[in-house]
Amino acid sequence: MAKILAINAGSSSLKFKLFEMPAEKVLASGVFERIGLAQGKIKIKSTTGVYTSEEPLTDHSYAVKRLLELMRELKIIIDFNEIIGVGHRVVAGGEYFKKSVIVNGQVIRRINDLAEYAPIHNPANLMGIKAFRKLLPKAVSVAVFDTSFHQTIPKTNYLYSVPYDWYHKYGVRRYGAHGTSHRYVASLAAKLMQRPLNELKLISCHLGAGASLCAIKNGKSFDTSMGFTPLTGITMATRSGDTDVAMISFMMQKLNMHSMPEVIYDLNKKSGLLGISGVSSDMRDILAAAEQKNERAQLAIDIFVKDIVKYIGAYTAEMGGLDGLIFTAGIGENSPEIRELVTQRIAYLGIDLDQKLNQVRGKPVIISQPASKVEVMTIPTNEELMIARDVEELIKESSVKKAANF
Amino acid sequence: MAKILAINAGSSSLKFKLFEMPAEKVLASGVFERIGLAQGKIKIKSTTGVYTSEEPLTDHSYAVKRLLELMRELKIIIDFNEIIGVGHRVVAGGEYFKKSVIVNGQVIRRINDLAEYAPIHNPANLMGIKAFRKLLPKAVSVAVFDTSFHQTIPKTNYLYSVPYDWYHKYGVRRYGAHGTSHRYVASLAAKLMQRPLNELKLISCHLGAGASLCAIKNGKSFDTSMGFTPLTGITMATRSGDTDVAMISFMMQKLNMHSMPEVIYDLNKKSGLLGISGVSSDMRDILAAAEQKNERAQLAIDIFVKDIVKYIGAYTAEMGGLDGLIFTAGIGENSPEIRELVTQRIAYLGIDLDQKLNQVRGKPVIISQPASKVEVMTIPTNEELMIARDVEELIKESSVKKAANF
Repeated sequence: MAKILAINAGSSSLKFKLFEMPAEKVLASGVFERIGLAQGKIKIKSTTGVYTSEEPLTDHSYAVKRLLELMRELKIIIDFNEIIGVGHRVVAGGEYFKKSVIVNGQVIRRINDLAEYAPIHNPANLMGIKAFRKLLPKAVSVAVFDTSFHQTIPKTNYLYSVPYDWYHKYGVRRYGAHGTSHRYVASLAAKLMQRPLNELKLISCHLGAGASLCAIKNGKSFDTSMGFTPLTGITMATRSGDTDVAMISFMMQKLNMHSMPEVIYDLNKKSGLLGISGVSSDMRDILAAAEQKNERAQLAIDIFVKDIVKYIGAYTAEMGGLDGLIFTAGIGENSPEIRELVTQRIAYLGIDLDQKLNQVRGKPVIISQPASKVEVMTIPTNEELMIARDVEELIKESSVKKAANF
Repeated sequence: MAKILAINAGSSSLKFKLFEMPAEKVLASGVFERIGLAQGKIKIKSTTGVYTSEEPLTDHSYAVKRLLELMRELKIIIDFNEIIGVGHRVVAGGEYFKKSVIVNGQVIRRINDLAEYAPIHNPANLMGIKAFRKLLPKAVSVAVFDTSFHQTIPKTNYLYSVPYDWYHKYGVRRYGAHGTSHRYVASLAAKLMQRPLNELKLISCHLGAGASLCAIKNGKSFDTSMGFTPLTGITMATRSGDTDVAMISFMMQKLNMHSMPEVIYDLNKKSGLLGISGVSSDMRDILAAAEQKNERAQLAIDIFVKDIVKYIGAYTAEMGGLDGLIFTAGIGENSPEIRELVTQRIAYLGIDLDQKLNQVRGKPVIISQPASKVEVMTIPTNEELMIARDVEELIKESSVKKAANF
């Protein structure tokens, strides 16, 4: 059976999931943390148990070497050659990458060029790609972009109303993120609804620490709430979402800040649910504090819900209607409270929630009443599986092409 | 009959309209331009004709003196004492001014304090107030704020998801603008619809060179698209509307700009319809260019329409439904094309436009079919009249109070 690895490499971490394909069975998953620091951390979960260790992980290349060794030691694999493909999450694909691609030298150069749109993530993603290409030279290496699903967004929806040269010369436009997640849940939603994806108007609410909404029209991303960067859209764990650019110069003066990056840091790290509530960036803590009558926690919940409602309304108008509404990621999958608060407020769209089904966890499920005009769904996301599927698909395509060339 | 002046003082200009109240008859209107520059310009329209002149206007005080002299010369008034009240547009009223007020020393100090939120406008508005108080000491002076109508917006809708101290200590929040216009057209809409204003869910689209949408729930502003400053919301003539704060530091690097004000200037003056189309900031020119197949002109129209549609959807969701949709100000009143393009895209709300009524100009009119679930209206705005009404109202209130004190 073919084994495919899905990899998410950060600047000091490496997350992985190993799938047996096409069975889509998870053989192992885990994370390498604190790479490049004095002491690293390893955690690997497999069918036989959990392995942990603390040891120095000098760089990404060494971390990948340890991962492969450990998978063999733990008998997750017997031979490295069982891994026929490695899929890598890449944050910024710009306008160049409209879908997942097999990595070659040119792809590496492009991902490097696109680092100006994701200065922290793209270089980290590349470290992962390079390490695996060196250590598993026979495996097919695939890049899967957070942005590529959103490349179908029409110009009317992706352009900002700024001087046109900002787009034309410098690439300033809406790129979005969470594309792999939105794509995955949309395809599952169509199955749940038993209707063809290319006839549906869907809105996917990816509500994690980072959060974005996506309008999906006829199976294609039509608009999304994250923009040129992941800072915009709805209130997130610590990110502000939409604000007013002009407030920034005002606040820089007030706080005696001398550079934009300082204030952008605050908007990324000290804002959102944390900034409003003052309690936590975690919705579970905030819901608990609101139970105890903490006013700012309640305010954070109200604003979060209002933002989601606002974007659902906006995207319903942009698409001219709505067939299905999807909740996914941390909060979306696990908070019946938030799903209920959101859907209550958009009852005018003909939404009628089933209180009992809204309590179901851990599996894709329709949570609206049969008579509800809009079908509401909870769908656990699975970006790693989507990455593994893309790898499998591209391997098949390339072997068909190779065969055709004979 | 009582005469009331409505004044809009800019940094180098002074616009006025003189009303006979309560008849609401316009006796004269006009503008003093280039105040403080070498050569000033005067234009006064009255029932007897148009007076123009070019002469030095040293400062606002002198311009007001000339205005009063000329009104007497042109026989618009016989005695200064006929003017019983002067209403002044003031841009920023902050959280302090929740409605229009009679000006006294404390009000002047407060408007001055609030200048940090409108560094160009509030000081100019104050110059007008001070000049009239000096020259018409017996007239009641009233301040009418662009922001006060929006003071009913709930916290959930006016707060940004930034560190809470930014609001608590520095007043960073959504203040909005065009309040006097949104308030005026909402009250007329209720009359047209023959329903009580305090039972209606309305959206007012003020589409001028500056443009904002306002959700008006039960007669009160519930949300609005302009924010801490007038830069946000929909695409305007030369302002960007919503963007991504993080694109600013990116563009500052690209354009070698060293200060925020430079890039904020571009977002205020070189963006919006002008920035996208490259043709003009005037919708009439853009519509004409699009007729000639200019692609970027078409794109500017499409984006403008999409932004309006997006906010209509968002506010319908926030209010949980929609009864009436109002178009007002330059484009809103005079462009049947834009009204049609917008309403076509939100037909899913049950909107059905009457093509013939959509061509009516210059008066308040319902332009939707009788069966349309949402009533659509064109309503010419009249901020000056609203200002005059507020002055009249406050004069009445204060005389009632005085009488009660005897």
